[in-house]
Amino acid sequence: MDVRTLLLQVKNGEMDLKEAERQLRDLPYEDLGYAKLDHHRELRSGFGETVFCQGKPDEYLAEIYRHLWERDGAVLGTRASREQYELVRRIVPDVTYDPVSRILKAEKPEKQKPRTGLVAVCTGGTADIPVAEEAAQTAEYFGCQVDRIYDVGVAGIHRLLAQRRRLEQANCIVAVAGMEGALGTAVAGLAQCPVIAVPTSVGYGASFHGLSALLTMINSCANGISVVNIDNGYGAGYIATQINRMAVK
Amino acid sequence: MDVRTLLLQVKNGEMDLKEAERQLRDLPYEDLGYAKLDHHRELRSGFGETVFCQGKPDEYLAEIYRHLWERDGAVLGTRASREQYELVRRIVPDVTYDPVSRILKAEKPEKQKPRTGLVAVCTGGTADIPVAEEAAQTAEYFGCQVDRIYDVGVAGIHRLLAQRRRLEQANCIVAVAGMEGALGTAVAGLAQCPVIAVPTSVGYGASFHGLSALLTMINSCANGISVVNIDNGYGAGYIATQINRMAVK
Amino acid sequence: MDVRTLLLQVKNGEMDLKEAERQLRDLPYEDLGYAKLDHHRELRSGFGETVFCQGKPDEYLAEIYRHLWERDGAVLGTRASREQYELVRRIVPDVTYDPVSRILKAEKPEKQKPRTGLVAVCTGGTADIPVAEEAAQTAEYFGCQVDRIYDVGVAGIHRLLAQRRRLEQANCIVAVAGMEGALGTAVAGLAQCPVIAVPTSVGYGASFHGLSALLTMINSCANGISVVNIDNGYGAGYIATQINRMAVK
Amino acid sequence: MDVRTLLLQVKNGEMDLKEAERQLRDLPYEDLGYAKLDHHRELRSGFGETVFCQGKPDEYLAEIYRHLWERDGAVLGTRASREQYELVRRIVPDVTYDPVSRILKAEKPEKQKPRTGLVAVCTGGTADIPVAEEAAQTAEYFGCQVDRIYDVGVAGIHRLLAQRRRLEQANCIVAVAGMEGALGTAVAGLAQCPVIAVPTSVGYGASFHGLSALLTMINSCANGISVVNIDNGYGAGYIATQINRMAVK
Amino acid sequence: MDVRTLLLQVKNGEMDLKEAERQLRDLPYEDLGYAKLDHHRELRSGFGETVFCQGKPDEYLAEIYRHLWERDGAVLGTRASREQYELVRRIVPDVTYDPVSRILKAEKPEKQKPRTGLVAVCTGGTADIPVAEEAAQTAEYFGCQVDRIYDVGVAGIHRLLAQRRRLEQANCIVAVAGMEGALGTAVAGLAQCPVIAVPTSVGYGASFHGLSALLTMINSCANGISVVNIDNGYGAGYIATQINRMAVK
Amino acid sequence: MDVRTLLLQVKNGEMDLKEAERQLRDLPYEDLGYAKLDHHRELRSGFGETVFCQGKPDEYLAEIYRHLWERDGAVLGTRASREQYELVRRIVPDVTYDPVSRILKAEKPEKQKPRTGLVAVCTGGTADIPVAEEAAQTAEYFGCQVDRIYDVGVAGIHRLLAQRRRLEQANCIVAVAGMEGALGTAVAGLAQCPVIAVPTSVGYGASFHGLSALLTMINSCANGISVVNIDNGYGAGYIATQINRMAVK
Amino acid sequence: MDVRTLLLQVKNGEMDLKEAERQLRDLPYEDLGYAKLDHHRELRSGFGETVFCQGKPDEYLAEIYRHLWERDGAVLGTRASREQYELVRRIVPDVTYDPVSRILKAEKPEKQKPRTGLVAVCTGGTADIPVAEEAAQTAEYFGCQVDRIYDVGVAGIHRLLAQRRRLEQANCIVAVAGMEGALGTAVAGLAQCPVIAVPTSVGYGASFHGLSALLTMINSCANGISVVNIDNGYGAGYIATQINRMAVK
Amino acid sequence: MDVRTLLLQVKNGEMDLKEAERQLRDLPYEDLGYAKLDHHRELRSGFGETVFCQGKPDEYLAEIYRHLWERDGAVLGTRASREQYELVRRIVPDVTYDPVSRILKAEKPEKQKPRTGLVAVCTGGTADIPVAEEAAQTAEYFGCQVDRIYDVGVAGIHRLLAQRRRLEQANCIVAVAGMEGALGTAVAGLAQCPVIAVPTSVGYGASFHGLSALLTMINSCANGISVVNIDNGYGAGYIATQINRMAVK
Repeated sequence: MDVRTLLLQVKNGEMDLKEAERQLRDLPYEDLGYAKLDHHRELRSGFGETVFCQGKPDEYLAEIYRHLWERDGAVLGTRASREQYELVRRIVPDVTYDPVSRILKAEKPEKQKPRTGLVAVCTGGTADIPVAEEAAQTAEYFGCQVDRIYDVGVAGIHRLLAQRRRLEQANCIVAVAGMEGALGTAVAGLAQCPVIAVPTSVGYGASFHGLSALLTMINSCANGISVVNIDNGYGAGYIATQINRMAVK
Repeated sequence: MDVRTLLLQVKNGEMDLKEAERQLRDLPYEDLGYAKLDHHRELRSGFGETVFCQGKPDEYLAEIYRHLWERDGAVLGTRASREQYELVRRIVPDVTYDPVSRILKAEKPEKQKPRTGLVAVCTGGTADIPVAEEAAQTAEYFGCQVDRIYDVGVAGIHRLLAQRRRLEQANCIVAVAGMEGALGTAVAGLAQCPVIAVPTSVGYGASFHGLSALLTMINSCANGISVVNIDNGYGAGYIATQINRMAVK
Repeated sequence: MDVRTLLLQVKNGEMDLKEAERQLRDLPYEDLGYAKLDHHRELRSGFGETVFCQGKPDEYLAEIYRHLWERDGAVLGTRASREQYELVRRIVPDVTYDPVSRILKAEKPEKQKPRTGLVAVCTGGTADIPVAEEAAQTAEYFGCQVDRIYDVGVAGIHRLLAQRRRLEQANCIVAVAGMEGALGTAVAGLAQCPVIAVPTSVGYGASFHGLSALLTMINSCANGISVVNIDNGYGAGYIATQINRMAVK
Repeated sequence: MDVRTLLLQVKNGEMDLKEAERQLRDLPYEDLGYAKLDHHRELRSGFGETVFCQGKPDEYLAEIYRHLWERDGAVLGTRASREQYELVRRIVPDVTYDPVSRILKAEKPEKQKPRTGLVAVCTGGTADIPVAEEAAQTAEYFGCQVDRIYDVGVAGIHRLLAQRRRLEQANCIVAVAGMEGALGTAVAGLAQCPVIAVPTSVGYGASFHGLSALLTMINSCANGISVVNIDNGYGAGYIATQINRMAVK
Repeated sequence: MDVRTLLLQVKNGEMDLKEAERQLRDLPYEDLGYAKLDHHRELRSGFGETVFCQGKPDEYLAEIYRHLWERDGAVLGTRASREQYELVRRIVPDVTYDPVSRILKAEKPEKQKPRTGLVAVCTGGTADIPVAEEAAQTAEYFGCQVDRIYDVGVAGIHRLLAQRRRLEQANCIVAVAGMEGALGTAVAGLAQCPVIAVPTSVGYGASFHGLSALLTMINSCANGISVVNIDNGYGAGYIATQINRMAVK
Repeated sequence: MDVRTLLLQVKNGEMDLKEAERQLRDLPYEDLGYAKLDHHRELRSGFGETVFCQGKPDEYLAEIYRHLWERDGAVLGTRASREQYELVRRIVPDVTYDPVSRILKAEKPEKQKPRTGLVAVCTGGTADIPVAEEAAQTAEYFGCQVDRIYDVGVAGIHRLLAQRRRLEQANCIVAVAGMEGALGTAVAGLAQCPVIAVPTSVGYGASFHGLSALLTMINSCANGISVVNIDNGYGAGYIATQINRMAVK
Repeated sequence: MDVRTLLLQVKNGEMDLKEAERQLRDLPYEDLGYAKLDHHRELRSGFGETVFCQGKPDEYLAEIYRHLWERDGAVLGTRASREQYELVRRIVPDVTYDPVSRILKAEKPEKQKPRTGLVAVCTGGTADIPVAEEAAQTAEYFGCQVDRIYDVGVAGIHRLLAQRRRLEQANCIVAVAGMEGALGTAVAGLAQCPVIAVPTSVGYGASFHGLSALLTMINSCANGISVVNIDNGYGAGYIATQINRMAVK
Repeated sequence: MDVRTLLLQVKNGEMDLKEAERQLRDLPYEDLGYAKLDHHRELRSGFGETVFCQGKPDEYLAEIYRHLWERDGAVLGTRASREQYELVRRIVPDVTYDPVSRILKAEKPEKQKPRTGLVAVCTGGTADIPVAEEAAQTAEYFGCQVDRIYDVGVAGIHRLLAQRRRLEQANCIVAVAGMEGALGTAVAGLAQCPVIAVPTSVGYGASFHGLSALLTMINSCANGISVVNIDNGYGAGYIATQINRMAVK
């Protein structure tokens, strides 16, 4: 109910003052004490709620999965461990776990979104694949078609160039790279669509757990590139979906 | 000419070997010695070349403006000083200068793109306006309609909330903020479209010339937010245009 | 005995020189070799001594708890492990342990302070709750009434706004947040009382174990906000108590 | 007018729907385009608006001073240059400038608040005095009595100890120090009231413009100490006032 | 043999050319392949060789202890684990291990140096004692009398002041502190002799494993204070010995 | 086949258009899905492919070793664990493992390159030897003669000076050092050939896992020194081989 | 008067209570409002007060010089500019200024201390000389004989070795170096006496204004080396004097 | 004279003891007080002495140029200002100055080395040219032929690929880049010879004066790349010459 309707009902005496006051203050979330579930989220943003599993206490996690499964028929969780998978499976038997992306997902068949448009997900090396898969599977879950273009780092630039046509067809490209993180710049130089760069914590020595790759990407001399947090495949998949949806609308 | 056509002409004897070899090696840029101008850029990316004025030697700058003006009838330059404006004006009298955004622009009337779609540009405070204007005017130059929503920082959250409807209408939001940089998170929490966060070097003490705001934005707990370099209004305006174009296509 | 009385006794021959000299040098603490217990602390500051359990050798910890329990009838310990709880329980059976806040506390009923005034403790997310509980329980131990307002981060600003009235009633607000740490600024913008911001080490990627949240909070553009160390719930609870006491005096 | 009254008027037909809707959306600030003045601020927080002068364009600054002077009869500005003083003086002749604290202030006699309670402001060295004066004069402007205790750094601890009694009488202590910043810890060890520590950019070599002092203060092993941004005397004076007001209420 | 004697012998035909050449090139250390033992070290510096045990492979460690024990009758090792103690004890049964300082030492009675002069070792808290003991026992091993003054941090400055006389009697003071590390400055302000400050990795949050304490100490506004590496108790004990020897010469 | 030949064949009808097009697009690597093997690498660079074992999933690692062993008869792997050795040995029984350098190597006798030229590898201490051995064995694998000069750190400069002649005979020197990393400068001051400096993560306290040594080496005031990543012995051995090959050509 | 005498006088009625109380509280410094002059300092520490000129307001500086000159007949100031020299000279005509060390000194002939013992001051390069001279002249002012050994950096290690004998004769060595700062380690390896290392801000690129040299020196693998702040020649000269005095006592 | 000859002369009485002793101690440099000129340098390293002009006092600079010009007939100076050029020209009229590279050079025609081999110098953008020219002209001065390949950054990768053949012909490549510094990796992926990467301070925002580019290059996932200090064109030119000489020997 919007404010106007509410006011009209007050004016018409269809709603008493107390109730009107309550509704004006009432916000579209449910307060479960330890967490505030955001029921209107999908409405507002077109994206259902997802669960960041890492570090969640066991009792909370299981509860949240059941809750969302029952209400929505679909739950996407990220950064889950195998132990968490075992735990949740006992309560939501339909849940599936991908050890590479660490995505813990349950989805009723009728809830699965058809995949449209095109998001490309690239990695610099094979060690970046877990983060890339988090991005790719997130985008797929939210209804994007995804093209995976892995192991095309700048140190062997011909591998990237050979994929040029695939890059040109995407509505958004997610570029995932650790170590020196130069992939983002090279991809943005080749592409026309927005590039979301994801630094990874892959590397050693002075890579400082992804800080070096992050700085590389933030300082990129290419146009059309923006950056998310280190290892934040989910965030990149989310933005890629937002952009892809615009293109297919 | 694509490779297939070229090969066909070779096969048919319409092109000799030497020429074919040359064309295969020939790349779509012009080598001016100190710089390589990218003639195919607009074709490839839909964006004409822009000039980063800061630090360019006088002789180069004037030359480049004349060159691009004559060829394209439109030049966009960023981070220009008033001195550079005086310099360029002698050669390209149509050039205009905005001291706030420091944009130095020349555009033949017939070259001006109609403004479509909607990009919102927000700032945390008034000191962030120069960077915001760089973003806004860049987006306008590339054909976006822009809604400016300034001085809506998180310390007075009601100012931001009052603009909620305007935020909801944009295809992309550019959130510009220095100091603690919390604007990006608040905006992304309210919006459905992608948010491009621009940390600014505004601040003092432990703001470290924008590093603090950059870290805030990169660590944002909101979805749908990605980050460009400190003070990089141009970069944000560019990406916002890419996204806006998708929405209006 | 104050200096004046002492001097008077010396003058009157009621105290000999040696004793006077000794007393003037004697300071109000007891030297136990490996630690110097501060007997006058509660007198001086109105706060009893607390124990930072983490890293304390087992033999010392048990000894200290018994010592303080016998002398004061109340001990507050922070950052205790479950093992330390088991250890101390054998010596002070009345001790209780809260695994969330990791507070290890023993308090004779007659020693419990009545709770007055109001301190609000907010968190950005559920993962910040352990630090928030350390703050809340510290404030309660020292005699404050506490209002817990959890999971009201800036990414869903409506959740925070819905709690506005509760914030307005507090004499001091403790704002606990990790990741980008924007909660402190938003709370300080809504509140009239001092806000103590506690960055937490919650986050990943470029959060750098709380450094990012710390910088955000230190650079806050809001008024009335000051910051304590990363994860330092105890320190925040302590200051909140100092301020709350002033308000209820 | 609060929500209840408004709803009542709607119900009673004393206010039409459109107006009610408008008022519900209407927020208590005035939008001047480049800035949003917060008219309800003093009401809400008990503190009038202040002006951060540094970097403000001349035309804006003069305008803002006149505006606030006419409306409120009192303006406090911080970080003003002598040039800005000359500028504002032409428009608000009553304005006064203190080159040490760089405070640019205008106050009608009848607007001056009586000074009550007690805030102590300490510095480690003489070079910290400008920041300390910003804190002290801010607190005085908002109605606190201030005791200045300067040049009592830890390297000559007897100087600080000699001031012990003065420290004990304050409701809040502002501890201002650069270089190694140890003053905050020593003061908090002596005091019973909250200590607001202000790191200053005073120092050289590895002081890194105040970062070192900031870290020292954030890591303080003393209780009852919280920290504001480097050189942020205004922020410390503001919080000290909040706390002092509680004590004198 | 010095160069002059050698040349004389060459001149007199007492040494042939080849031998002279060899001796001139021969340097006073023994090459054991994986390590170069420095036989002349004690001669040169007045300090025997010590062993940094941490991370040494088992076979090397045992070998080195036996070697030095047989040659010198005294070995001092630092940062040893209990496992290393068990290992070495099988080969050098006289070895003793102190789990606090982690010093692994073997010393024939006749090799023990009489303790002269006075070095004071202070700590800020009890958690700094392991590093302090490394310093104290190192100084004792090399022949200094040591006065331990523990738990006298700046947060309770009266505890330090009560030890003033003891500080005044030392020839060198080692000040060991973590967290904010302010002890060094306070001690140097009270003492006349050189103060060697040792930052420790004790702390949490923004202490960054001792970096914060290191910066505090390096920026100290006191005179007569210099700093060694984080947790480097051995280094401090070594320098204290050098200075103490000068005083007792 | 080069482009000219290809075009000639097209012209002469010896190759059809489709094949020509394919070959022009076909790049010299094989796409195995999760990784792109670079078959032309040895041809291009004169170095066979090597395997960075650390973090490689078991199934991939074994597969890659077998693949390369069968194709090339020689595989060099770095940063292998003993577990990985056991794993690979089951598939490639000829593989050998060196626990110091952590190199996991298989080489058919006829594939072993004769060792020519001279590369010197120095270390500051014994703890740097693992990194040095990675460099030395890499250089040997690629056909260099290697002179190991270990434990010649700057703190005992005579040990380094005694090796002067050996340094002068090398075509390239690899200087491996942790802690303060001064070895690189001293070696470069003595040598005429290029020095590749390798900072190691050896050290404690403020060594920050090799950052300090890295900064030392990058700031070296000596000529002829360049730096690779922390602990990157392989990279240094590779460059040393490149330089050595030039000298022996 | 010591406490005992005072108490005796009280007992004997030679001093009344009030006076005794006053004297016990009275501390040995003079409070000049903006600064607290430490009259007992020379007594306590054997060092007169020195003036850190940089940033001191003109009126204060002149006043302080006159004050100290009249009282003590000797003033040592550091980091003075030529303008400050001109200013002070008008009030204390005997003052002399050394533009290299930036020391501004006035000393009555009868106040000059005879120079005894030996302090060696070394530099890595010629650019480090200003800091070295601050150290050397400070040590001379306080009565040390100084041996200057300049431009003996590690990149040309033979230059340092040629000075070995001079190093061996010093009671303390000050090692001043910027860039990579390796001098400290090399000197400490050669010397038997304590080495005070002074990192300088000399360098470029990744020297980060002396941070790199500071880290090098703090991480030194040599024994007997401790570090002062970047460019802190005065501090090093002070400590060297403390040590030298012990040796010559 | 080598040691053997000297000893022979001593034996034969052709040299007296004192002279022999002196010569053995005498080192190959000349001590000019403020600087130690290294006469044997060219002999030792094959490179004459160069002058780092920046920050050199005027009197020293002129003196050094005259000295080296008279002795060697060739001087190379780096980082010279136009003022220094004017100064030196008065004393060495043959000196020439290049404002781009800031090289100040004097060379008698007969001293000019013939240029052999091939060093390639690449830049990412035009703003990197000054550093590249310092590298290129240094290499030319020391006798290398240089191929300049400018403005071939990774954001437009086709520009770099078009230069592939030129890269393949070089014996060493210097890759100069600021901003995100990805050029080094791309070049090393294409080349067979060693790549010396030079980060530049070109950039803004989070480039941190070249630190970001430095980290990118140090973390490069390509083989055959090592790094020198930020903006250190001279150092790169020097090493490139060392390598080029090996190839042309």
